[in-house]
Amino acid sequence: MNAQIISIGDEVVSGQCLDTNGAWIAAQLFAQGLRVTRHVTVGDDLGAIVGAVRDAMTDSHFIVVTGGLGPTPDDITRQAVADALGQPLEIHDAALTQVEDFFAKLQRTMPVSNRRQAMVPKTCEPVMNPRGTAPGLVCRRESTTLFVLPGVPAEMRTMFQGAVEPELAAFALDGAMTLTKSIHTFGMSEASMGEILSDLMAPGRPVSVGLTAADAVITVRLVTRAPIIGSAEAAIAKEACEIRRRLGAAVFGEGEDTLQHSVLELLTAKGITIATAESCTGGLIAKCLTDVPGSSTCFERGFITYSDQSKTDIFGVDASMIESHGAVSAEVAQAMAAGCRSAAGTDLGLAVTGIAGPTGGRAPDKPIGLVFVALADKSGEIVKKHLFGQHHPRSEIRIRACKSALNMGRLRLMGKI
Amino acid sequence: MNAQIISIGDEVVSGQCLDTNGAWIAAQLFAQGLRVTRHVTVGDDLGAIVGAVRDAMTDSHFIVVTGGLGPTPDDITRQAVADALGQPLEIHDAALTQVEDFFAKLQRTMPVSNRRQAMVPKTCEPVMNPRGTAPGLVCRRESTTLFVLPGVPAEMRTMFQGAVEPELAAFALDGAMTLTKSIHTFGMSEASMGEILSDLMAPGRPVSVGLTAADAVITVRLVTRAPIIGSAEAAIAKEACEIRRRLGAAVFGEGEDTLQHSVLELLTAKGITIATAESCTGGLIAKCLTDVPGSSTCFERGFITYSDQSKTDIFGVDASMIESHGAVSAEVAQAMAAGCRSAAGTDLGLAVTGIAGPTGGRAPDKPIGLVFVALADKSGEIVKKHLFGQHHPRSEIRIRACKSALNMGRLRLMGKI
Repeated sequence: MNAQIISIGDEVVSGQCLDTNGAWIAAQLFAQGLRVTRHVTVGDDLGAIVGAVRDAMTDSHFIVVTGGLGPTPDDITRQAVADALGQPLEIHDAALTQVEDFFAKLQRTMPVSNRRQAMVPKTCEPVMNPRGTAPGLVCRRESTTLFVLPGVPAEMRTMFQGAVEPELAAFALDGAMTLTKSIHTFGMSEASMGEILSDLMAPGRPVSVGLTAADAVITVRLVTRAPIIGSAEAAIAKEACEIRRRLGAAVFGEGEDTLQHSVLELLTAKGITIATAESCTGGLIAKCLTDVPGSSTCFERGFITYSDQSKTDIFGVDASMIESHGAVSAEVAQAMAAGCRSAAGTDLGLAVTGIAGPTGGRAPDKPIGLVFVALADKSGEIVKKHLFGQHHPRSEIRIRACKSALNMGRLRLMGKI
Repeated sequence: MNAQIISIGDEVVSGQCLDTNGAWIAAQLFAQGLRVTRHVTVGDDLGAIVGAVRDAMTDSHFIVVTGGLGPTPDDITRQAVADALGQPLEIHDAALTQVEDFFAKLQRTMPVSNRRQAMVPKTCEPVMNPRGTAPGLVCRRESTTLFVLPGVPAEMRTMFQGAVEPELAAFALDGAMTLTKSIHTFGMSEASMGEILSDLMAPGRPVSVGLTAADAVITVRLVTRAPIIGSAEAAIAKEACEIRRRLGAAVFGEGEDTLQHSVLELLTAKGITIATAESCTGGLIAKCLTDVPGSSTCFERGFITYSDQSKTDIFGVDASMIESHGAVSAEVAQAMAAGCRSAAGTDLGLAVTGIAGPTGGRAPDKPIGLVFVALADKSGEIVKKHLFGQHHPRSEIRIRACKSALNMGRLRLMGKI
């Protein structure tokens, strides 16, 4: 039972708008156990839409089309669907009543062009639109059901929930339920994770396991289908447990969790506080921590010591230390961590100094991407050197530096370093 | 000359991720005058990828495929492209060297699984990836050029700009040039701008003008097509000049410009420095300023005074002032701006205090979304009160507070306030 999504619109195919409808519909179909095999996006072009609908009808049992149902001449989806089905397009009385009623409710006169929206291919039925003027279409053939919905997201979603969703159970893969889970990790390479999880990632297993990387976080994505929700839940929980066991402390959360969530949870659980001292990250670490509501119970203050003078003024870092080791050095990172902890009177001090580029990094032992992360607590300071690669852009080096610092805090609070 | 985009990944076809790559690539191709007729998204499924590539090769002259080039067994795009082209997949020496060099530069051992990434179909060439381990592929046939790029957005974009863009001119539609320009504004409502620009926004004019809003910035988008680049440039320049004249100081930049760019340019031109004092924005203002390469010449240091104690310690804000007016007040904002200017010894001090929610804001005169922005310079302090709306999420209130502060700095430096 294959499902397919077709998005229509010049603004989508030309990249002026993101196709959020396609992703939303896919997630709904997927959650109900349909196998979505393909999305196709085409412009407001009759031949292209007819071709896409015909292709879909050859290999898909459930098709959702969005867009191109408006009242203007560039809205040609009704005509294209009629052509693809080889049927004439006719005014449908109930559809016309719906369009007329919509204008009547707003106490506005219906423009003549809106009559186009009541045209329905002969063997299709209209789908009522409670939130706009454009009725949708549904065509049921022996092997295929085709829904056509407007492209306006709010209208599309309402109509999907009202008219499409109730029909999905019949198309679910073997009546199956689909469950997903995502497990986020930091600090282990994608290739190493692939090796550690290779047997679980083999195709054809009851829980499918894949990896995706984004902004230095590698996520393990689990998907399973089962006829009963309970068995799907049990299967995915068992697999997640095994994955967490193998990946150990690299796992920092699931779903919407972030590294800063994890750090703040650990701080809250221990009832302790943190302060930050940032150079190359320029406030990004503090910004991430304070993204989280309620962070004020643990985050006391932060310093962005961008100039050398500010490092001396605030943390008492000796000008001679900066002179001899450089502002980007393990010694200065350590002094910043200890200095911000003592200035703020917090339990932890977290510090970063590095070269984010694109300028600087001329000394051979101080390339762009060199970052020192340090953490101070009651037992002293720890410091770690990172090389994030000279060819990464400034923004990526800063994100990696920030996440490495948060991860150092997390691992320390867990007693892993 | 038709172009087509193919996005690959279970996470995209199932709707777990938005396909931002497809839209970005489409926009690039469109801007260069190629006619993008279709995007297709398929999962990590060999048959589906082979089918999509073969279909594209029957009717498109230029094809860009993204995703599925990673080192793990679910990354099968190399194999699928080889199958679609009917060619064997072989280790390519130059590609292998690139992958090995990437690990060598990071001083890490290359996992064996990364060798997969150096496999190239026989008549294809690798496309070097300066930002990651996965080389891309290019296949040039008499009628079709096919590029295959990684799905990681940062890597894909760098490779597109380096390897794909230089080849696009040869595929442009009828040699017609498409030119676009975006003009960014802050502080004026979309409706006011729509009224001021209504005649320019009428359909059918040679330069089309539209408005889009994102993160409190309203952007005027101009698009024109012309057979000769010179006439397109002249038309768009004339229109942009008129729009800037009408919108005045609300315009802060074009294209990739941001408010922080504008502030730093003004500071640099005057040869003066700035320091920041943040409460509810938690480092976001400093982060934005230091996003810009070279910001260290003007940005001296920043303070995130999240606790009341830190406001007293660092800026000497009287505990009694916080007690009587509250930490979120015009008085405290002013004291923070003056305090950070004097602590840092800079020409300007920029400060924010507010209630970002979702907690707090219980007092009727201190709702969620209440933010005070203050600026100190040699002539004293100015302060402005904002109400960003109680129902906005924390992230949006923080972004609006940050941009309002940067905009206050910009207008002051321009002598407009």
